[in-house]
Amino acid sequence: MKILLKIMYVGTDFCGYQVQKDAVTVQGCLCEAARIVYGCDCDVTGCSRTDSGVHANEFFATLTAKDGHDVSSSIPLDKVPIALSSNLPSGISVVKALSVCDDFHARYDVVYKEYIYKIWNAPVRDPFLEGRAYHYPLKLVDDHIERMNSAAAFFVGEHDFSSFMAQGSNVASTIRDVKYCNVVRDNDLITVKIAANGFLYNMVRIIAGTLLDVGKGKTAPEDIPAIIESKDRSMAGATAPACGLYLNRVVYK
Amino acid sequence: MKILLKIMYVGTDFCGYQVQKDAVTVQGCLCEAARIVYGCDCDVTGCSRTDSGVHANEFFATLTAKDGHDVSSSIPLDKVPIALSSNLPSGISVVKALSVCDDFHARYDVVYKEYIYKIWNAPVRDPFLEGRAYHYPLKLVDDHIERMNSAAAFFVGEHDFSSFMAQGSNVASTIRDVKYCNVVRDNDLITVKIAANGFLYNMVRIIAGTLLDVGKGKTAPEDIPAIIESKDRSMAGATAPACGLYLNRVVYK
Repeated sequence: MKILLKIMYVGTDFCGYQVQKDAVTVQGCLCEAARIVYGCDCDVTGCSRTDSGVHANEFFATLTAKDGHDVSSSIPLDKVPIALSSNLPSGISVVKALSVCDDFHARYDVVYKEYIYKIWNAPVRDPFLEGRAYHYPLKLVDDHIERMNSAAAFFVGEHDFSSFMAQGSNVASTIRDVKYCNVVRDNDLITVKIAANGFLYNMVRIIAGTLLDVGKGKTAPEDIPAIIESKDRSMAGATAPACGLYLNRVVYK
Repeated sequence: MKILLKIMYVGTDFCGYQVQKDAVTVQGCLCEAARIVYGCDCDVTGCSRTDSGVHANEFFATLTAKDGHDVSSSIPLDKVPIALSSNLPSGISVVKALSVCDDFHARYDVVYKEYIYKIWNAPVRDPFLEGRAYHYPLKLVDDHIERMNSAAAFFVGEHDFSSFMAQGSNVASTIRDVKYCNVVRDNDLITVKIAANGFLYNMVRIIAGTLLDVGKGKTAPEDIPAIIESKDRSMAGATAPACGLYLNRVVYK
């Protein structure tokens, strides 16, 4: 059996999820905490690779001992979140620990993931959202939000998202199936929500940047299909900053 | 005329509101920003003196030039929030600027202030609330919250709050009029809300600590009147940590 951890983290203090030499990463911290708690080197496999500054309200990772011995029963599962969290920096928490079959894969078994992108839309910053939302100071009114939603609807379905992938990425297929994509406003906070069976590199941030262009009137909602069709990164909007992005929900089989 | 600033701040990075030598304080930052924006030394008078680590969702301060000249018309008031915020650390924002009469006093003209105290009540911390709520890990169920509310009701009205004042404080009167005091739960977040015409030093944090004792069953709600009557600090609960406290609303005449 493997241990499946449900975690959350504030991305601000980490150089992304994936382990790197000489950098503090979420995966690196999880490995170190697991080594202390279980007394052995462990492999930690995450559901996604978030970039530096990107947050997670919900993230899953499996934990296995490198030497193959079963760690899933050495500590009662209900004690694992506190044991691991106590050995993690305050920006990461392990919320839950479950036992899963050995053939479970944290990344490949995902049915879909939901990301949100937060935009603070007021003339001055909200100090409580510093590093936790992108600050766009010019007022977007309900009409703009409606236009953004019209644009967002064009992303839904199976498309080649090459135009919404960071240049230089190398993937087998650039086709992804977007389940839903919408924009909601709650006072001065605008949230873009998008779910898909997978995401290309920077896909959500480029979609958020493109939707912002629609809000600003730089792009018309009806332009989206042509931008998708073009398979040309330069046709889409700028990559919105990492600080607004949250992995929000991960759904398994 | 004076300028009245509506501000908000995350207290984590500041040694409290009030200016201090060799320490970064909210008032110190506001004075420095005003000096840059107005090109002259300014007096900044706040509505309250919050401690190190205490936050403000709403805080008011007046701004006047030390040499007495009228700064209220030198920059259009609607430009002031952005001008000042751009010269402040990211943990402080000036949200609004208004013009008020010279005899307006940011502290003495307050009718009542509302504070909230946030308690994160789950086994593991919420990383997004680190430094922004007090983490109490043992589950308080609805029954406990009900008891806390029964206790909270005893604080309402005019009382001598000596038992709820940090020892060594020096004030003319220890009588304060509490307008309302209640406890609400929203999933794992418990919020104590209290409004009064004024607060003694550490009063909200000691009341929050005492209400937590009621939640834990260490103190009965019916004990509160005797604790108030005793005028003895040692009868009340511990001073809850600063990180959970927010000045939330300030009401003027």
